[in-house]
Amino acid sequence: MPDLSTLADIRTALAQMPGPDATAQAAAQDRNGQLTKPPGALGRLEDLAIWYGAWRGDGRPRLTKPQVVIFAGNHGVAAQGVSAFPSEVTAQMVANFRAGGAAINQLSELAGARLDVHALDLETPTADFTQGPAMSEAEVCAAFAAGWEAVDPSTDLLVTGEMGIANTTSAAAVAAALLGGDAWVGRGTGVDDGGLARKAAAVSAGLAANTERSGLGVLQALGGRELAAMAGAIACARAQRIPVILDGFICSAAALCLWAEDPQALDHCVAGHLSAEGAHGRILEALGKEPLLSLGLRLGEGSGAALAIQVLRGALACHSGMATFAEAGVTDG
Amino acid sequence: MPDLSTLADIRTALAQMPGPDATAQAAAQDRNGQLTKPPGALGRLEDLAIWYGAWRGDGRPRLTKPQVVIFAGNHGVAAQGVSAFPSEVTAQMVANFRAGGAAINQLSELAGARLDVHALDLETPTADFTQGPAMSEAEVCAAFAAGWEAVDPSTDLLVTGEMGIANTTSAAAVAAALLGGDAWVGRGTGVDDGGLARKAAAVSAGLAANTERSGLGVLQALGGRELAAMAGAIACARAQRIPVILDGFICSAAALCLWAEDPQALDHCVAGHLSAEGAHGRILEALGKEPLLSLGLRLGEGSGAALAIQVLRGALACHSGMATFAEAGVTDG
Repeated sequence: MPDLSTLADIRTALAQMPGPDATAQAAAQDRNGQLTKPPGALGRLEDLAIWYGAWRGDGRPRLTKPQVVIFAGNHGVAAQGVSAFPSEVTAQMVANFRAGGAAINQLSELAGARLDVHALDLETPTADFTQGPAMSEAEVCAAFAAGWEAVDPSTDLLVTGEMGIANTTSAAAVAAALLGGDAWVGRGTGVDDGGLARKAAAVSAGLAANTERSGLGVLQALGGRELAAMAGAIACARAQRIPVILDGFICSAAALCLWAEDPQALDHCVAGHLSAEGAHGRILEALGKEPLLSLGLRLGEGSGAALAIQVLRGALACHSGMATFAEAGVTDG
Repeated sequence: MPDLSTLADIRTALAQMPGPDATAQAAAQDRNGQLTKPPGALGRLEDLAIWYGAWRGDGRPRLTKPQVVIFAGNHGVAAQGVSAFPSEVTAQMVANFRAGGAAINQLSELAGARLDVHALDLETPTADFTQGPAMSEAEVCAAFAAGWEAVDPSTDLLVTGEMGIANTTSAAAVAAALLGGDAWVGRGTGVDDGGLARKAAAVSAGLAANTERSGLGVLQALGGRELAAMAGAIACARAQRIPVILDGFICSAAALCLWAEDPQALDHCVAGHLSAEGAHGRILEALGKEPLLSLGLRLGEGSGAALAIQVLRGALACHSGMATFAEAGVTDG
């Protein structure tokens, strides 16, 4: 693990990331063209399999050890009345994750994925970003490093999820700071009109109180520990050529902080789904990522991405399991 | 199995179909409201689980025995030069299905589904519908009955797939006859502009040569054995309250023939995916079905629907496996 003690250290690590394996990519493309189907008939499944093979360095890849990691954090901005749920729910849901009762438990099990849960200093919320930076440099770097360390080096696919009351407000502030424009707030877990107005006011105040606009600077000022940890985990995956499926609004906002540092930083990532949180699609557009699923989920926890593991599994099952025209004795059109 | 010897017999059977179980539906809705998530946060997964529970008569259902059935048929209209592949490929692909080498083999295995393959008189193609009806009444009824018989009564989810060179032309003719309008033909397995023009001409000639416009009449005149068998299997599933995931353009055209007989005939079906075959979306619109997936697939074989089994599995895993707020000790918002 590289030194990640300062934002400068993190930037040094981000500057040393590997790309996909061109030889494996060519081999996967070649194999795809020989399979018993009309050219292109498996649509995005074909692209997915080739993308995955390129990152794994294998022209006929298998997915055997997916990992879902959930990071939980509490937010000072919750004091602004921006969530339908009290902050205690963060710890209660962590207990629910650990007991196996949440949606992500069921979806991880279905996907055959290992699930890890990291509660990040829940008893010490971040500072209220309407008054100044949510975290000190040391705090954001520690959370980033915790995310980096959470990735199992032997995994072959990563999903990062989150839990944190008020974190759609944090994610909206991050997106607003990095992409500009308005209307980044949505109803999150289900706030009423008053809550929505308070979210918008908190984002405006946060942007006024924090003027740094680099990706990592925004992560520190307007993010939260779970957002920083997701960014660290996604970066760690890149360093080890582990493909990533991004989850919804909050995960995508965390990833956006890496993208703002380097537009190629997310080349090892696909968008798992389009969330019902309205502004998610605008982040994905900025990232140039088309979601695999669009089922109206807005739960977080990594749930949409975990479900999308099944799409990737389908892509790889076809790519690596199908017969070629020659093997099957089928006339090529 | 009811008597399905004539179209009148089939209509009698279709008139005696059961609806969903209202008690189970209410129980599933009640359970959904207690799960540890904000209301509605699992989006369409919630609707899917409740729909499935209602049809299975179980407020907390599990999916244990999905079945994928592929029907293969050959088409007289292939003589009009409407496909990029020769008709021999139908039998070659049946052999590939039986050997385990096709996409649907991989996707069925991934979904934990039993896969059955029924080759329907491949050596005797249907008549060329540009000259008159594709099938006699006895032929279409025999194929419908073969589909009905192919459904395992103990299964708890059905996917019907197909293989048949020239069957996108047949499906386009069926859709044109039942829904009216133009531009129902597409590139299917990948015909060139000349092939596309020949498909359009064949559909026009087929509509002129066959003037019957009832659902089953169109199935006989413009369909094919595999379309009739899919319709029979979907009807059989309804009779036994087995939910169905519809596949792409050809499966949807077959289902459309049932819908034309009775607009509620497909209430036990969801649309698995939106195919890249352009007119598929227009059939789904007519049926009022929103697809679960939209990944650019256009392979048939039941492939898109088999992949969508995973979405249903995710929905049911969450619905039936998650803890309630009370069980988990989580504060309800």
